[in-house]
Amino acid sequence: MDSHSKPVRIAVDAMGGDNAPSEVVRGAAQFAARGEGHILLVGDPEAVGRELSEYDTSRLPIAVIPSEGVIEEDESPALALRRKPRASVLVSTGMVKQGHADACVSMGSTGAAMAAAAIVLGLAKGVERPALGGPVVGVAPHTCILDLGANVDCRPRQLLNFGAIGDVFARSFWGVENPRVALLSVGAEVGKGNRQVQETTEMFEKSGLNFIGNVEANDVPKGAAEVVVCDGFVGNIVMKLTEGLGQQMEAHLRARLSDMLPADGLDRLLQEIYAVSNVVETRGGGPLFGVNGVSVVGHGSARADAVERAIETAALTVRADFIPEMNRQLEALESRLGA
Amino acid sequence: MDSHSKPVRIAVDAMGGDNAPSEVVRGAAQFAARGEGHILLVGDPEAVGRELSEYDTSRLPIAVIPSEGVIEEDESPALALRRKPRASVLVSTGMVKQGHADACVSMGSTGAAMAAAAIVLGLAKGVERPALGGPVVGVAPHTCILDLGANVDCRPRQLLNFGAIGDVFARSFWGVENPRVALLSVGAEVGKGNRQVQETTEMFEKSGLNFIGNVEANDVPKGAAEVVVCDGFVGNIVMKLTEGLGQQMEAHLRARLSDMLPADGLDRLLQEIYAVSNVVETRGGGPLFGVNGVSVVGHGSARADAVERAIETAALTVRADFIPEMNRQLEALESRLGA
Repeated sequence: MDSHSKPVRIAVDAMGGDNAPSEVVRGAAQFAARGEGHILLVGDPEAVGRELSEYDTSRLPIAVIPSEGVIEEDESPALALRRKPRASVLVSTGMVKQGHADACVSMGSTGAAMAAAAIVLGLAKGVERPALGGPVVGVAPHTCILDLGANVDCRPRQLLNFGAIGDVFARSFWGVENPRVALLSVGAEVGKGNRQVQETTEMFEKSGLNFIGNVEANDVPKGAAEVVVCDGFVGNIVMKLTEGLGQQMEAHLRARLSDMLPADGLDRLLQEIYAVSNVVETRGGGPLFGVNGVSVVGHGSARADAVERAIETAALTVRADFIPEMNRQLEALESRLGA
Repeated sequence: MDSHSKPVRIAVDAMGGDNAPSEVVRGAAQFAARGEGHILLVGDPEAVGRELSEYDTSRLPIAVIPSEGVIEEDESPALALRRKPRASVLVSTGMVKQGHADACVSMGSTGAAMAAAAIVLGLAKGVERPALGGPVVGVAPHTCILDLGANVDCRPRQLLNFGAIGDVFARSFWGVENPRVALLSVGAEVGKGNRQVQETTEMFEKSGLNFIGNVEANDVPKGAAEVVVCDGFVGNIVMKLTEGLGQQMEAHLRARLSDMLPADGLDRLLQEIYAVSNVVETRGGGPLFGVNGVSVVGHGSARADAVERAIETAALTVRADFIPEMNRQLEALESRLGA
């Protein structure tokens, strides 16, 4: 692929997230030091400059792009984007639209990054709203679950789009040749499920995807499918329950094993459990699905290492040709099934 | 309470479940040996008699009640109940209706036990279908989640009934004075959630229940509410994801710790994890919600110990006056809000 040879240029929203700009700048500097791409740090020039001066970045491929204002977690994204047209998330997304960057990365708010991507980059064919997805159940690292919360009420056609996007995700990121696509439901038999699943099944059967029918929640951690489709209400519950159970398990094991294991062995074990229970955080973030450009949204509480990983994910998404592949797949779906 | 003083009489469907009649009869004999109640074993007299002859039950309070036929897992419950009017699950449920038993217990099928309870015992005021619920997330042992799969598509009024029934469950079984009732949703703020949650919130606010608003899935394992209300599609996913994650965690810990812990210590730890991840199985079963009588449905794969625990749950449900309390609560709700 051509995109593999040239250095990737990534616009990073230096002002987004709970620990901006300090941790974002540090994470960006860490990524730049790896020599895998160019960083465009978008933010208040003074604040970003002050943070940058902490590191020796003179020979690193980092440029600062000025912006004005930040969209806060508690603001209505649509309204705030209109009121702050030079906000960091809009400027960094605009860099992608204008061809100055190959991808943009923001630590939030998620709502603002999604709205900015939808408005500035535009939506892919047949998509009504961006979606969120990824491998959130860490014990099944090659299972992409979507949507994870952006679309809480879904029509069958939206779920079908999620299946198609997940299919491209599994091919692009994991090299899976013919990803198994399943609907998350309450029974494995065809037709078992709520009205939504029942209305969606026939469409999936005609989709040309490798649709394997329903998968039950107890089989998700076993990796029963590469793509698990559900609405954002259910997906968000799957993601957060996994997090919450992992936290309780960690606390339980710490109490139970503290006398039985050496401290460093226990710490390592608990870190592993944390990692498989909090994939979004350990992975740094994932690309928004259904927008015409690479926009990666990370965890609001991200520290420098997680920011670095989010930037790495953005670079991977560019190199995997994820967006053009997704657009091809969505167009193929539309010509097969109609809008 | 008067019901505490007299011995509880429990009709046990000896033919239901994967391991019937042998494991069911053994579990019933174990319970009878505890001297806490009378057992009416409902089934094919010859098969049940053969199993009973394995134990010295001459001085135990066990009687055999003849029935004809069993409803299998793959049969349509409604149809099968009409075709087999003397089936074990119908006869044992009928014992409760006729006042010969205080409760009935079956290891399945769940569908047949639910249909039998609805038809024979009748539904509580305002209830359209029986519901399933209980503490399925073992790290939060005093959180009753409902529905768990019986009602996959729910109107707001049904969810409200679940809240009222859960309230009575937490009072009756755990002695909680003013149980916190929450809607499972994707954001903690009021109004966050899908259409269903939004339509239901106002009704809950007027219900007279101790409604605390939304709870997110990551807070469920922390015991953020005594009653967590969701439709059966979502509840089933919560229950089965908890199971599936527990299984994977068990396998992971077995592999990681086998060299680091003595075998018996490891086994104990893994048993604990199994127990908190498979509450339905370790608890034996729970009462059906919304029917006019105590009917406990256990796990189809139950062995004798789980059968014994299911019978114990039935006895507890009788002694806690759960059914009359539930009926009072549902009537109060109806007079406050209308049907």
